[in-house]
Amino acid sequence: MARLALSDADAQVRRWFADEAREIGCELTVDQMGNMFAKRRGRSRSPAPMTAMGSHLDTQPRGGRYDGILGVVAAMEVLRTLHERGYHTQYDIGAVNWTNEEGARFPKSMLSSGVWAGDIPIEKAWELADISDPSITVKSELERQGLLGQVACSHDGYPLGAHFELHIEQGPILQERKKRIGIVQGAQAYRWFSFTIAGQDAHTGTTPLDMRHDPLLAAAKMIASSNVIAKQFGGLASTGVLRLPTNSSTNTIASSATFMLDIRHPSDEALADMQGEILSSFEKIAGEDGGVRLSWRLDTDSPAVKFHPDCIGAVERAADKLVGPGGWLPIVSGAGHDSVYTSRRCPSTMIFVPCKDGVSHHPEEYCTPEDCALGAQALLDAVLDYDQMRRR
Amino acid sequence: MARLALSDADAQVRRWFADEAREIGCELTVDQMGNMFAKRRGRSRSPAPMTAMGSHLDTQPRGGRYDGILGVVAAMEVLRTLHERGYHTQYDIGAVNWTNEEGARFPKSMLSSGVWAGDIPIEKAWELADISDPSITVKSELERQGLLGQVACSHDGYPLGAHFELHIEQGPILQERKKRIGIVQGAQAYRWFSFTIAGQDAHTGTTPLDMRHDPLLAAAKMIASSNVIAKQFGGLASTGVLRLPTNSSTNTIASSATFMLDIRHPSDEALADMQGEILSSFEKIAGEDGGVRLSWRLDTDSPAVKFHPDCIGAVERAADKLVGPGGWLPIVSGAGHDSVYTSRRCPSTMIFVPCKDGVSHHPEEYCTPEDCALGAQALLDAVLDYDQMRRR
Repeated sequence: MARLALSDADAQVRRWFADEAREIGCELTVDQMGNMFAKRRGRSRSPAPMTAMGSHLDTQPRGGRYDGILGVVAAMEVLRTLHERGYHTQYDIGAVNWTNEEGARFPKSMLSSGVWAGDIPIEKAWELADISDPSITVKSELERQGLLGQVACSHDGYPLGAHFELHIEQGPILQERKKRIGIVQGAQAYRWFSFTIAGQDAHTGTTPLDMRHDPLLAAAKMIASSNVIAKQFGGLASTGVLRLPTNSSTNTIASSATFMLDIRHPSDEALADMQGEILSSFEKIAGEDGGVRLSWRLDTDSPAVKFHPDCIGAVERAADKLVGPGGWLPIVSGAGHDSVYTSRRCPSTMIFVPCKDGVSHHPEEYCTPEDCALGAQALLDAVLDYDQMRRR
Repeated sequence: MARLALSDADAQVRRWFADEAREIGCELTVDQMGNMFAKRRGRSRSPAPMTAMGSHLDTQPRGGRYDGILGVVAAMEVLRTLHERGYHTQYDIGAVNWTNEEGARFPKSMLSSGVWAGDIPIEKAWELADISDPSITVKSELERQGLLGQVACSHDGYPLGAHFELHIEQGPILQERKKRIGIVQGAQAYRWFSFTIAGQDAHTGTTPLDMRHDPLLAAAKMIASSNVIAKQFGGLASTGVLRLPTNSSTNTIASSATFMLDIRHPSDEALADMQGEILSSFEKIAGEDGGVRLSWRLDTDSPAVKFHPDCIGAVERAADKLVGPGGWLPIVSGAGHDSVYTSRRCPSTMIFVPCKDGVSHHPEEYCTPEDCALGAQALLDAVLDYDQMRRR
């Protein structure tokens, strides 16, 4: 699937969403970020905000057919099922399609749920340019596609009573543990660092080991050390980027090296402790083997998120009924999702279903039809349970 | 200094060499690779080949003023001193300027001493193209500069009785140990490998550590391990090149990694043992943390070279006299030199003098005038000692 946010392909699927919403008797609202809300009125006619089921229909440029899409399609299927069976919830219930969750075209992930939550100023969001054409902005595309709504994009402009999001796991844990449903407790904290190591270029044949200042050796030891420390803390430490000067050669010690470090943990406190241990290990390594100069920068700091116990409880009861207590797993989201932002403003949680080998953001992304259906059923059962809970 | 082999600047310094040789009564021969031999006849009029003092006058494109040059200039100074003092050796004695030692313009190091030793076929050497202009070859430049001599470039065409080479150390050992002369015992064995690690790209936030196949983590552990093993063996292990796929990103485990490994040891047997230990450590690491697929290739295999005890002895006696037994150091050459090739066909050794901070192939390359003079004096004393030895 290649459906970049606010592209013509995105406008096309949004027309489907709008048509579908009207066909099943929902009221459609588009806000100033193009977020789409389809609301089915509850029988109490309460003015309380709706229980929402949301995710996103945009994808990576060479993405899969499930990431985001499953959550919106399942939400519409829940609404259609209620409509066809003539079932009326107590409170309003509805579906949300969040704009530019992927950040693939306009380079900020979860852009419009971020604006809605008040974390990203709307002017900044509107100004964001298409990564391949700086003359195109979020606002110009919203206008061109007729998606620049009147309603303020905010938790005041269009408040939500709760937010449930069905999503593929995008990791291998459910498949590995043979569980069909993951009940998401929150999102782990993560921090991104860049490290620069300055050493001294030197001939590999004429420079004894103890007279070297070898930045790549130091980086290698640091990467290995961060992995050992992450294991001790039950967290994650990952390096996906490492760069040497372009003139590097087999028989020359490099003059410098840079690498990125991504550390994650479900607990903010544990992450801070883990960071402390990693940094002191890096300082120690920088002093070994003749020594190198280490400098670092914190590039991203995203605190842990805890989802709401009422929403989690509703999903647990649904999952117990569908797969039994042994069939589901409490899980922490490793990736960012719109629910991370909604959780700042309304009770939220997510339902994960397995995806093959954990592959995502890739054409081979796959979730079986049975698991898609089970996820949609869990979503339906959970929102009805939550609707009952709200009534009490 | 920027004097690429067979360039106009090289032709200019070669005219100086030729003029100088004639001025001090030497007989000049240029062979089919442009190697220049300046011979001063010995008083015995023996047909035995001359005791040679050789090195090279070509440099890296942004090189220093000592690497190679010191050895040729000192050789000419030795010949001039003998000439001016009217001292006559028993056997013929002379200086050699070897063509394209650096391999910087025509990409093969020690090209013409390699042809002379019979290790590089002359046709292959002649065909080598200028790295920045494929229409120019070694042979076309030899012809253009009038340096394509009649004498066969070989140890038969112009045999040498011995080869002594004064050179800067190109490493930091003499400076660090406060020694003014290094007596070179030989050149260490070295092997170059390329390693390719295939893993699996994965999201850093959603993929548990034990479900990863992380090629960069494996490479980091391998680089660190090769360093530990090299220390145990008293050898060298170095990685100066490491590459990840161009689409690497902070929150994605890379799909693959490649790196080069350069291992060195003065002993062939120890190098082979070291290689075995490193490879089995790499295999073990490849099986850890979920596993990666490791493949490797041996790119270069250069056996250890042992210089001749008679030449080494002559330099030792000279050094004892000049700086005392505590003032010099037996040393193993880490870099390649023309003497490595000559040693296959005649008794050879080298004399090292300190260079500032071990810096070489760089404009900041520096050897004090005092150390240059001391090296030249050691060269003179050693060749006279060797001449005496030949007489006995």
